[in-house]
Amino acid sequence: MEVRLAEDLMQANNRLAEKVKSLLSSKGILTLNFLSSPGAGKTTLLEETLKKVRGRAEAAVIVGDVQTSRDKQRFEKAGFKAVQINTEGGCHLTAGMVEKALSSLDLSGVELLFIENVGNLVCPAGFQLGEDIKVVLLSTAEGDDKPGKYPEAFFNAQVMIITKTDLLSSTNFNLDFARQDALKINPRLKIFEISSLKGEGMGPWIDWLIHMVERKRR
Amino acid sequence: MEVRLAEDLMQANNRLAEKVKSLLSSKGILTLNFLSSPGAGKTTLLEETLKKVRGRAEAAVIVGDVQTSRDKQRFEKAGFKAVQINTEGGCHLTAGMVEKALSSLDLSGVELLFIENVGNLVCPAGFQLGEDIKVVLLSTAEGDDKPGKYPEAFFNAQVMIITKTDLLSSTNFNLDFARQDALKINPRLKIFEISSLKGEGMGPWIDWLIHMVERKRR
Repeated sequence: MEVRLAEDLMQANNRLAEKVKSLLSSKGILTLNFLSSPGAGKTTLLEETLKKVRGRAEAAVIVGDVQTSRDKQRFEKAGFKAVQINTEGGCHLTAGMVEKALSSLDLSGVELLFIENVGNLVCPAGFQLGEDIKVVLLSTAEGDDKPGKYPEAFFNAQVMIITKTDLLSSTNFNLDFARQDALKINPRLKIFEISSLKGEGMGPWIDWLIHMVERKRR
Repeated sequence: MEVRLAEDLMQANNRLAEKVKSLLSSKGILTLNFLSSPGAGKTTLLEETLKKVRGRAEAAVIVGDVQTSRDKQRFEKAGFKAVQINTEGGCHLTAGMVEKALSSLDLSGVELLFIENVGNLVCPAGFQLGEDIKVVLLSTAEGDDKPGKYPEAFFNAQVMIITKTDLLSSTNFNLDFARQDALKINPRLKIFEISSLKGEGMGPWIDWLIHMVERKRR
C-alpha cells in the first residue's frame, strides 16, 4: 500500500510537471533542475553562472530549502530575480510547488530558469519539476564514490558538474574514478569540472548553457 | 491521507525502535546513529574512531547505503565487524532494517554499536533506530549555514561533529557561525571539531565516547 501510494503521488507529480514544462516551453524558457547533497555548491555555482550569463540571456531562480530564505537573499543581493520555496520538512521539491512559485515570478524576457532543489541526493531524483534538463552536482569534498552509492540522481541527470575542484589537492578525490563511476550508471552524462570559488572551468559550462538557450530560441 | 499514512509508518517504526533499544540495552551495548549529508565523512570518522577505541571497547558497525557495499568493505578491510544494509532507493534506515541486520551480527562482547545511516540530512532525522544517541556530522566543505536550513537533524541529535576541519583554510566556513546556528536550534548539543584525515580533534571525542561506554557498564 505504501509503495502504491508513493507511485500514485509520483505519477500525479509527473503529470503536473508536464503541464509546467509546456507552459515554460511555450514562453521559450530553458529550465534546469539542480540536485545535489547539501553543501555541494549549488547556490555558489548558480550565483557565478548568473553573473556570467548576464547580458547574454535573462535568467531567474526558484530556490528550494527545508527552511530559511538564506539562498533567496543571496540571489537578490547579487541582483537576480529569485523566489524561495520552503518545503517545511519535505525532502524534495514537487511540480506543484514550482507551479505555485511561478505565479510570483515575473517571467517576461526570461529565457533561462534555474530551479535549485532541496539539498538531497536521494529524494529529488525521481520527481520531475517541469525542467528540460536535470543537473547533478558532486563536490570533490564529498568523495569520488558517491555516483555508485546514490545512482538514481546520476541515472536521471543529463549533466554532472564536479564542483569544488580547488579542493582536489586537499582531498583524496580521484577525478577519473568519479567520472567512470558516473558513466557506468549513465554513459550519456555530460560532465563539467568547476571551481565556482576560483572561477575555474566556468567557460565550457557557460558556453554549453548559452548554446542550449540559443537552440531554444530558434 | 498522505500525511496520516506517513505518521502511522513513523509511529510503527518508532515502536519497533523501542524494542531494538531494549534488546541492545539488555546486552549493555551503547548504540549511536550517525547522520549527515553524503560525503560529510561518516565512514572515515568511524574508521578512525574504531581504531582509537580498539582495546578499550569492542565495537561493531551497521552501515546503510542506497546501493553498493563499499563502506562494509572499508570496515572489514580495517578488521572490524560490519553489516551492510542496502535500502534500494530508500532515503533512510528504519528500525526494521536494523533489527534484521542485528540477526547477522555477532554481538558477543560488543559494547559499542555504530549505525551509519544513509547520507541524507533530511529523511533520517525523524526515524528512531533503537539508538541511545544521535550524532549529526557537518563538514566544513558543506558550509556553515546548514543547521538552519536542515533543522530537524540538528534538533534531534545530542552530538554534532564538525568534520574536515583541515579544509577550514580552503573554505569560507565560519566555525562560530555554524556553532551558533546549531545551538539556536538545540542549545544542549555537544559539539566536537575533528579532522579524521589528519587525526586532529579526535581526543575529546574518543574520551567522551569511552566515558559513555563506562556509564553503560555500571
